[in-house]
Amino acid sequence: MTQNICAELAEFATNPVTTTETARLVTALSALDWMAVGIAGASEPVAAILRQAEQANGGTASAHIFGSDLRLPPRAAAVVNGTTSHALDYDDTHFAHIGHPSVAVFPAALAVAQAQDHPIVDVLEAALVGMEVSIRVGLWLGRSHYQTGFHQTATAGAFGATAAAGRLLGLTQEQMTHALGLTATRAAGLKAQFGTMGKPYNAGLAAACGVEIAQLVTLGFQANPDAMQGEFGFGATHHGQEDLDAALGGLGQEWLFEQVSHKFHACCHGLHAALEAARDLDIAEPQTAEMTVHTHSRWLSVCNQPAPDTGLGAKFSYRTVLAMRALGHDTARLDSYSAEICALPRLQALRDRITVRADDTLSETQARLEVLRRDGVRQEATHDLLAPKTLAEREGRVRDKAQALIGADHANAIWNVLQGGGRADDLGRMMSPS
Amino acid sequence: MTQNICAELAEFATNPVTTTETARLVTALSALDWMAVGIAGASEPVAAILRQAEQANGGTASAHIFGSDLRLPPRAAAVVNGTTSHALDYDDTHFAHIGHPSVAVFPAALAVAQAQDHPIVDVLEAALVGMEVSIRVGLWLGRSHYQTGFHQTATAGAFGATAAAGRLLGLTQEQMTHALGLTATRAAGLKAQFGTMGKPYNAGLAAACGVEIAQLVTLGFQANPDAMQGEFGFGATHHGQEDLDAALGGLGQEWLFEQVSHKFHACCHGLHAALEAARDLDIAEPQTAEMTVHTHSRWLSVCNQPAPDTGLGAKFSYRTVLAMRALGHDTARLDSYSAEICALPRLQALRDRITVRADDTLSETQARLEVLRRDGVRQEATHDLLAPKTLAEREGRVRDKAQALIGADHANAIWNVLQGGGRADDLGRMMSPS
Repeated sequence: MTQNICAELAEFATNPVTTTETARLVTALSALDWMAVGIAGASEPVAAILRQAEQANGGTASAHIFGSDLRLPPRAAAVVNGTTSHALDYDDTHFAHIGHPSVAVFPAALAVAQAQDHPIVDVLEAALVGMEVSIRVGLWLGRSHYQTGFHQTATAGAFGATAAAGRLLGLTQEQMTHALGLTATRAAGLKAQFGTMGKPYNAGLAAACGVEIAQLVTLGFQANPDAMQGEFGFGATHHGQEDLDAALGGLGQEWLFEQVSHKFHACCHGLHAALEAARDLDIAEPQTAEMTVHTHSRWLSVCNQPAPDTGLGAKFSYRTVLAMRALGHDTARLDSYSAEICALPRLQALRDRITVRADDTLSETQARLEVLRRDGVRQEATHDLLAPKTLAEREGRVRDKAQALIGADHANAIWNVLQGGGRADDLGRMMSPS
Repeated sequence: MTQNICAELAEFATNPVTTTETARLVTALSALDWMAVGIAGASEPVAAILRQAEQANGGTASAHIFGSDLRLPPRAAAVVNGTTSHALDYDDTHFAHIGHPSVAVFPAALAVAQAQDHPIVDVLEAALVGMEVSIRVGLWLGRSHYQTGFHQTATAGAFGATAAAGRLLGLTQEQMTHALGLTATRAAGLKAQFGTMGKPYNAGLAAACGVEIAQLVTLGFQANPDAMQGEFGFGATHHGQEDLDAALGGLGQEWLFEQVSHKFHACCHGLHAALEAARDLDIAEPQTAEMTVHTHSRWLSVCNQPAPDTGLGAKFSYRTVLAMRALGHDTARLDSYSAEICALPRLQALRDRITVRADDTLSETQARLEVLRRDGVRQEATHDLLAPKTLAEREGRVRDKAQALIGADHANAIWNVLQGGGRADDLGRMMSPS
């Protein structure tokens, strides 16, 4: 007999789980990363629009939002915070299903947890469970779903948000099965919105879906508990491959979430491998005579602007970001990318000594950097974004990024709350800078 | 060049329209019908759950909801009222695309109109425009979309709700194009929820989608203004046929909404043609000796319970509903279907003289009724639910149904508001019985 995926995921999402040290630490790091990109994203226009709309709706003051001291009802906080934290496109990514787990799940979990006064440790565990559910659903839907045009962050993410919110609301296994079945009728989000405000809004929709559905089920709402599968289920209607082995294999024993990637540079993803390779070399000025970047040919049409003069242009320019790093500008910071930096004579002089070459023996996540120093020494480094990092390195890098985005004091305070024994509200209060 | 369907529909939805007398009257009748089924549906469990959830969220008291004197923010009122008015499955149906236009569009239009203090006449015009958009989008998506498993009431309905809410909020044509494009990333709803609380919730989701998206666009939200079409658009991702001629042919010149059907019996749709045929004959007891119903074979497995003893069973029994009519029980009323009626000796005696026969020369919307009276006279009538009715007959029947559901005083008071020169609030205040 075919397993009912709603029921299997509901069993996982409502029972005690055995976590690993890696899963726990990476969840806390993703929470810090999510808070940092949310706080930094709060000044984006789309974030301001969502805040304004939900502040006009008003309502029970239970959950905090990014960029304001006002509290909102959990559903409203979820749509605001999901949208806000994805506004910079600087949040974490899980490459197995190609989705951003944090931005759908943390907003749902934290909003519900604040209303229920849960301890932080429960929020993190529920978020881990929810993000694992979203990754598993994403793998179940498979590449066909993504390639047809669905935004997994939103579609698979909605199931994860429901699981996290439902776990914190104490749904029974049967209730959770109904909640996941009901999510099948609401989960939505198209890649057609990429490049518009619609992309971050997709994440907000997923978060709000999880909160609303979990709340309705606590009040007795009953849905089709098997609406993901079957002739008219979510898989069939949404071009899913329905790969049950990928979805359920090792569920509860291994945490696929451990492989989540964090972004460490506030620019186009195509530039990241070259910037990581540069970390392994000494390219600080004024020693560098010449530099050559080798990268997959696909990126040359995406992020190889030779001499941009705006901050946005800099985010799509190998030569600019490498010159920025050589001159000591932090590529993790948003404000490093500016017209002023592009106009610096020292940056322009170095930039013009950097060459970019296509090399399709490299994968799209790899780059090779060759440096010729003025003292005649040649150096070379290759980096693959998929190469594993040690836990200590991941912690260091995420904390550095958070500090670059929101300042050391704020980042460290959040990290202390995440490591300590506080409650959801302690984290919620840190969402706005004041 | 292919027409951009978002832009074409936005042009229609934001400009002055020329309506017909039929379109105006049918819109007012659908508004009365929607109010009546919403007021009657407010005691359904799913309606109570939605009310409870949104009352807990609270917020700006601007729009009325069915079954309570409390006002809620427009988005919240839309999800409550959309769900509540579809809870009985007794609302109107448009067979060209197979959807229920009223329950997605009226809740969005009225909620926004109350917040903006619009006159009733504007609410009705915006609802007509929105329902026309939902029908046109439904035809554009086509039968493949519905047969794959999508609930057109919810998917096509979301575009209609956005059009109606956006018109009342005064969106420009460009803004409306963005709003419809953004709706493409959110419109959702599966037939897999049929038979559960998820079905009416689908209507509520569509209504809330329209309100939220129209509000966001007034605040400056920009989306992909062409996200319905193209390789990754809503049509491609949602198994749509993308029939532009069906969607845009005659748009603004003819109103497809005029063909909407109203349900006049609070029982399974399969019984309606036989009950309508009975209206053309004199079957009142004690004259009837025997009766034979001829119906399409499909219905025999759906609604041919020979001798039910519960109200729910009665709703799926040819013999019971025809005997009810012969004995003067109003089949439009919810409370006519009860265990008490099933137990009446006179009803059981007549029921046992009624025969049901399959006849596949009839369509699924047709039924033939043969009556043999005790005086030896034989009568016969055939009815097709798709046969056109005169405007006067439609008005009489809808008003009779509303009176049966909510009482003559309440129904007439609503009708007077719809015919008069009042404002949206005047209608909103009539949503709860007090």
